[in-house]
Amino acid sequence: MALDGVLAAIDRDLDKSLNRLFALLRIPSISTDHAYAAECEKAAQWLAAELNSLGFEASVRPTKGRPMVVAHSRGETARGPHILFYGHYDVQPPDPLDLWQSPPFEPRIAEVNGRKQIVARGTADDKGQLMTFVEACRAFIETEGKLPLPVTILFEGEEETGSPSLKPFLDANKAELKADVALVCDTDMWDANTPAVTTMLRGLVLEEVVVKAASRDLHSGLFGGPAINPIRVLARVLADIHDEDNRIAIPGFYDGVGELDANVRAQWMDLNFNARHFLGDIGLGVPAGEKDRHILEQMWSRPTCDMNGIVGGYTGEGSKTVIPARASAKVSFRLVGDQDPVRIRDAFRAFVLERMPADCEAGFISHGASPALRLPLESPYLAKTRSALEAEWGKPAVLKGSGGSIPIVGSFKHDLGMDSLLVGFGLDDDRIHSPNEKYDLESFRKGARSWARILSALAQ
Amino acid sequence: MALDGVLAAIDRDLDKSLNRLFALLRIPSISTDHAYAAECEKAAQWLAAELNSLGFEASVRPTKGRPMVVAHSRGETARGPHILFYGHYDVQPPDPLDLWQSPPFEPRIAEVNGRKQIVARGTADDKGQLMTFVEACRAFIETEGKLPLPVTILFEGEEETGSPSLKPFLDANKAELKADVALVCDTDMWDANTPAVTTMLRGLVLEEVVVKAASRDLHSGLFGGPAINPIRVLARVLADIHDEDNRIAIPGFYDGVGELDANVRAQWMDLNFNARHFLGDIGLGVPAGEKDRHILEQMWSRPTCDMNGIVGGYTGEGSKTVIPARASAKVSFRLVGDQDPVRIRDAFRAFVLERMPADCEAGFISHGASPALRLPLESPYLAKTRSALEAEWGKPAVLKGSGGSIPIVGSFKHDLGMDSLLVGFGLDDDRIHSPNEKYDLESFRKGARSWARILSALAQ
Repeated sequence: MALDGVLAAIDRDLDKSLNRLFALLRIPSISTDHAYAAECEKAAQWLAAELNSLGFEASVRPTKGRPMVVAHSRGETARGPHILFYGHYDVQPPDPLDLWQSPPFEPRIAEVNGRKQIVARGTADDKGQLMTFVEACRAFIETEGKLPLPVTILFEGEEETGSPSLKPFLDANKAELKADVALVCDTDMWDANTPAVTTMLRGLVLEEVVVKAASRDLHSGLFGGPAINPIRVLARVLADIHDEDNRIAIPGFYDGVGELDANVRAQWMDLNFNARHFLGDIGLGVPAGEKDRHILEQMWSRPTCDMNGIVGGYTGEGSKTVIPARASAKVSFRLVGDQDPVRIRDAFRAFVLERMPADCEAGFISHGASPALRLPLESPYLAKTRSALEAEWGKPAVLKGSGGSIPIVGSFKHDLGMDSLLVGFGLDDDRIHSPNEKYDLESFRKGARSWARILSALAQ
Repeated sequence: MALDGVLAAIDRDLDKSLNRLFALLRIPSISTDHAYAAECEKAAQWLAAELNSLGFEASVRPTKGRPMVVAHSRGETARGPHILFYGHYDVQPPDPLDLWQSPPFEPRIAEVNGRKQIVARGTADDKGQLMTFVEACRAFIETEGKLPLPVTILFEGEEETGSPSLKPFLDANKAELKADVALVCDTDMWDANTPAVTTMLRGLVLEEVVVKAASRDLHSGLFGGPAINPIRVLARVLADIHDEDNRIAIPGFYDGVGELDANVRAQWMDLNFNARHFLGDIGLGVPAGEKDRHILEQMWSRPTCDMNGIVGGYTGEGSKTVIPARASAKVSFRLVGDQDPVRIRDAFRAFVLERMPADCEAGFISHGASPALRLPLESPYLAKTRSALEAEWGKPAVLKGSGGSIPIVGSFKHDLGMDSLLVGFGLDDDRIHSPNEKYDLESFRKGARSWARILSALAQ
């Protein structure tokens, strides 16, 4: 069987693939710092050259920021669905440097508790992950002479800075980038032995509210009593958002939420998720979300509201007897199901305005609004991907949610009309965005093998 | 008559006195910020040097915080009551800087609607005020060769931070500082043409509360739901402090408040205080204090609670999807009658702690606690002072209350057994604690003249 030869090639050539990954990891392609723009360009060129050498038609495509890499396979058997693979070559800054045990852009293999790890900035987020797919393609092409289905690859260089060029680029290149399904490799496994497909992503509404009262800051002794205090008014609004059961009290908020699929829920309960351990790692002990909801529901399938920031009055050392003229808060909502981000935003604003007393006014700034995303459980691509992952790992793939948002998935859905299969081989302890970022060697090797199996399965 | 010469000297030397005041205003003696400790020391040294040059025996006296300045007159006719004059040389931080029309520590004279104003941080609170007394002493000494009665001067440098060193200093120097009556110049006139003596002062409890939750900042997508948000917890606590009638809901808070003397209340009602105009000046329209209380009661004879500052999470531009590890607020209470500041503080802390959910803890920092104060209406010093003020301004002095606290008055009462005569020449629109703080030039000139008259009257 052809796949066996491909898998064997991946194992046989592991050292060579590591050398290639190390070459990419040595490029400090930090997107947020303009001083590293040339390094981002270098990483993009490196990837395009790799893909060209494999027989892809690859090019570096300029944007207003960091460039894209786009590659199209050639000579494949054109029978399967056409897939678009997405990854990002940019990395977070390595700071604080003094906490790294070795230089962040000098990759090395470390052995921790008998497990080998690839240590470097960007190894898990996302260079190691994207190279699992490149290596799977390489093994197919070198073993079989071709890929089993048409593949387009899109690597961006601004994921760590909010992907400002991505939507314009997709809009300008719709016909070229449209495929049947997207593969996105920026997610985690369930644990080191259990693969996962992320099928639910929460949406996000980001609002900033500013409560204004007096025309200037006031002395709280001289004016305290008659003068309305905007911090107090804002606190009242924020306190009203949740009820005693930790549900959101904004009228209409739960419209479109829906209940979790019973089978998915049963699978989540079977995971025996250790809430105590999970929360203990961050210094907490009790799930604080909606009453009577399991912690995984609270994170993955239930909507939330968080205050991400608040400021008003004097915040320096000591005290200042002031009644400030204004106070503001950054409030965000995580959405699920069919919750409409625009309606949520409007409902929140109405909720705030209703609570403004005489002499106070509320202003709003929107920092974004995007709906939740779900991969339909009946997707044939999902079934094939699960089988492929189970074959590699010997365990069924968990269908999980993610509380966070991955904006590219929304763009693929809304701009290109494609669902995304979110498969990745990262682990909870990869320390992404932190010093000593690592990626397990087994994530890398079996990740590449998993993609080979997925490509083969999708082509059936 | 000797007094006439003294008054003439004050008018004649006005420009010189302004130069002296400007020199003091140029020193950014901000007490709440440790970065300005040396500037506070400099202001203290400047004052001691001034007083020594006048013939006082003056010295800068160290404390654990900012230093005191103590000065004793020499060579005066020792017939009158011994008075202790109090002022403070420290000032509030000038923030927000961008709202100042000129640099806060570069004093200037501005002319607004035909009235000249001295503009700088600290000009009304309290450097301009304390210099009215120094200039009155100077005029007496330069004209008569001596003061008409024994004078001790005490300037502190921590008034804006709750005067933490004051009580220890008074305790350690009781014999030196004890006098027959204190003169305190940190208050306002009734209006620009009507002098006032403040006979009621609200007390002050300054608390900072810090709510801590997770051991580190969390991603609000990945952890939103299960992870408790300390901003939300803090907002709940702050929102609970007031009830729907704007009364304080902390148990026991109103113990000792009492009702206003009927005669005093009648006088206040006769003032025809224009609440609409008063609030209109600061962009407000409706008194927001306790329901069914007159606005002057809300400010002068009723206790309040204000949030003076709040901060938590991300407060910069744009958004950040974070659940912060902590949030904090500065909360202050204004006390009246016999409210016990220590009991109020304890009751507040218990109120906060009762509202901490699982995984949250509250910490507290006290920034000071002092009771309310009243001057007996039958005091002979009060009668003489009222006459002197009427002679200068041509109108009877109003007996008023003050919503602000002057902790020193409590210390004088409780530690040194002295009443305080609260006379000052500030105006409602002086913008103390706010950008573009000013002090009317006429407040400065006629203030100095008023003190000359008061010294003369008290010596009779």
